[in-house]
Amino acid sequence: MPRWEQGSADRLTKAALELFEEQGFENTSVVEIADRARVTTRTFFRYFPDKREVLFAESDRIRAALVQAILDAPDVTEPLQVVTAILAEFDWIGPGIALQRRRHAVIAANPGLLERDLIKQNDIAVEFIQALRRRGVDESTARLAARVGIQVFAAAYVQWVERDDGADLRKLTDAAMALLQTLVPAGRAAD
Amino acid sequence: MPRWEQGSADRLTKAALELFEEQGFENTSVVEIADRARVTTRTFFRYFPDKREVLFAESDRIRAALVQAILDAPDVTEPLQVVTAILAEFDWIGPGIALQRRRHAVIAANPGLLERDLIKQNDIAVEFIQALRRRGVDESTARLAARVGIQVFAAAYVQWVERDDGADLRKLTDAAMALLQTLVPAGRAAD
Repeated sequence: MPRWEQGSADRLTKAALELFEEQGFENTSVVEIADRARVTTRTFFRYFPDKREVLFAESDRIRAALVQAILDAPDVTEPLQVVTAILAEFDWIGPGIALQRRRHAVIAANPGLLERDLIKQNDIAVEFIQALRRRGVDESTARLAARVGIQVFAAAYVQWVERDDGADLRKLTDAAMALLQTLVPAGRAAD
Repeated sequence: MPRWEQGSADRLTKAALELFEEQGFENTSVVEIADRARVTTRTFFRYFPDKREVLFAESDRIRAALVQAILDAPDVTEPLQVVTAILAEFDWIGPGIALQRRRHAVIAANPGLLERDLIKQNDIAVEFIQALRRRGVDESTARLAARVGIQVFAAAYVQWVERDDGADLRKLTDAAMALLQTLVPAGRAAD
């Protein structure tokens, strides 16, 4: 990649976020994003297949790292806790909590972006299920642990990203799990 | 609506399902769907905004019925169970289990349709949360009950629609909830 192109992906993501905030996702074109980032549209399409994907530049890397963490977990006898712990301990802040907060707000406000976000979440769930299966967890358990674990974490993540008080994501996730515990029917196995 | 158009929506859905099965979602055009259903493309667009939506003709009605069931539930002190029971008792068969099975398979096999299916699921979750809030359930509990309840039900639904043995959806949902019970950390509240 020519040196002048270094940082183009980051600049494109930042430009897209600004434009989506200013004028909405639907009203923003790839040409405008490229102009704002001072690159050609051809450069845009070298990095991203469409204007949705520009907010999900890191998603393949994030998914791969999370899946690897499941494959590397020392013990998966409590698969639901493994899933929530791995999600809660991941470095979601990346380039800064303020940027994550803006990105979260833009996705929530635009159905076209939300749809893409949901399929990315689904991709993570599908690969978590496969990883748990590879670790010897049965199909039904792997499915429920992955799908429910992601929802427990997501409940904590929304609070974390929408609040501005330096709350700890791990503690919020533990609180969401404790709340789930009160919602699930009391253990008949222990009767 | 002119009499000759009655049943057009059903014919379009059936035609789309056949074509998606035969040649894939991506390779099928609105023109082909309309031709197969013996209507004009103009008629197609009178019913559906795009070729994804043709498999989700009933989604608004289904969502409204499910949300109403939450608003009408005699008791929401166990909100997670309210959510799973309402989903498990809904008449998902509609025009037949064979058709539901084909629809499920086509959606699972085509990312473009899966994306739409995920956003429909998300719409249901969002309205469930609102309905539970209206019933006096607090925000965190409403969110977790709706999101986790939908995942518990979805685990049962996948088994139900993929199996061909007349299994009972309610029993499969109860089994999924019992499995979740074994995955959630033992009730510290009872320590």
